[in-house]
Amino acid sequence: MKPRDPADFTETKLSSEPVFEGQLLRVHRDTVRLPDGGTATREYIKHPGAVIVIAQPDPQSVLMERQFRYPVGRHFIELPAGKIDQGEEPMTTAERELQEECGYIAGQWRHLTTLHPCIGYADERVELFLATDLQHVGDRLDEGEFLEVMTVSLREALDWVVEGRISDSKTVLGLLWAEKIAKGEW
Amino acid sequence: MKPRDPADFTETKLSSEPVFEGQLLRVHRDTVRLPDGGTATREYIKHPGAVIVIAQPDPQSVLMERQFRYPVGRHFIELPAGKIDQGEEPMTTAERELQEECGYIAGQWRHLTTLHPCIGYADERVELFLATDLQHVGDRLDEGEFLEVMTVSLREALDWVVEGRISDSKTVLGLLWAEKIAKGEW
Repeated sequence: MKPRDPADFTETKLSSEPVFEGQLLRVHRDTVRLPDGGTATREYIKHPGAVIVIAQPDPQSVLMERQFRYPVGRHFIELPAGKIDQGEEPMTTAERELQEECGYIAGQWRHLTTLHPCIGYADERVELFLATDLQHVGDRLDEGEFLEVMTVSLREALDWVVEGRISDSKTVLGLLWAEKIAKGEW
Repeated sequence: MKPRDPADFTETKLSSEPVFEGQLLRVHRDTVRLPDGGTATREYIKHPGAVIVIAQPDPQSVLMERQFRYPVGRHFIELPAGKIDQGEEPMTTAERELQEECGYIAGQWRHLTTLHPCIGYADERVELFLATDLQHVGDRLDEGEFLEVMTVSLREALDWVVEGRISDSKTVLGLLWAEKIAKGEW
């Protein structure tokens, strides 16, 4: 039996307006044609994209950052990450963030995958990189950027996930991906 | 040697204003006091929270949905998920979404963890649940909701992650978590 073709649920843009332009966030509101001919409103964030870096001083450990995240109102332990500057290659963003925030350059870079962290209300895509062959050269944090860098064993970091001490989704995902690589499965 | 106390990078709210109130999105702009005494602006989404459900007809497979996500402009294969209604218990949201979207009720529920998907620009928290002992009772989609439900083996779903066919972050994270459970590691 031939598999059924997947259904087409495409929503088509009828109109689009910027409804908020902030320093960080840009919100659009579109009217769309639904698959059944009806219309609906879609509000979403336009995002420049971002990178996440699994940076490993050795195959069993990762660099992590601890910083305060105001929207949630507490400190988080995270993998290094950052927004892509306009026109910047994601690879360049990853190198820049690793050096600026953690103070490391990497001899080996590998692009692992493209992720979509927030498909309900943002167009954001995130490029996940693996950085190895690390060399410490010293950080150069942006003004107003406050964070601590730590090296954590992959095993301990995954324990922190189970305990709920690490709850940032990109970091949980990145650590589980790193474990698949460490085990030679991915 | 005593471990060093973690640094306090807390940012304190000086003022807060709603800058956009849409049907779906609420954006706030706050002025904050930085750890070094300076000030900065923080824009973020106020979100009611959400749930993700790993629903397993058997220990080696999961229910997934295929739907169009307008902000990114294409179809995605996802774990069942949904926003928490005002005043609703996350457990109730999970039961509701599993029945409405997939047409299943579950005899066993387990809360796995609390995640923060978007700490750079949203206060959203996501509760991750495991649902087993499933019984099909028929879906009842909201009007204007279009999706296909499928049962996929965990192994195949993880292959789709590596191939990039699954790129929704919550789904990648949920599948990797489900594999840890299937292996008896978590």
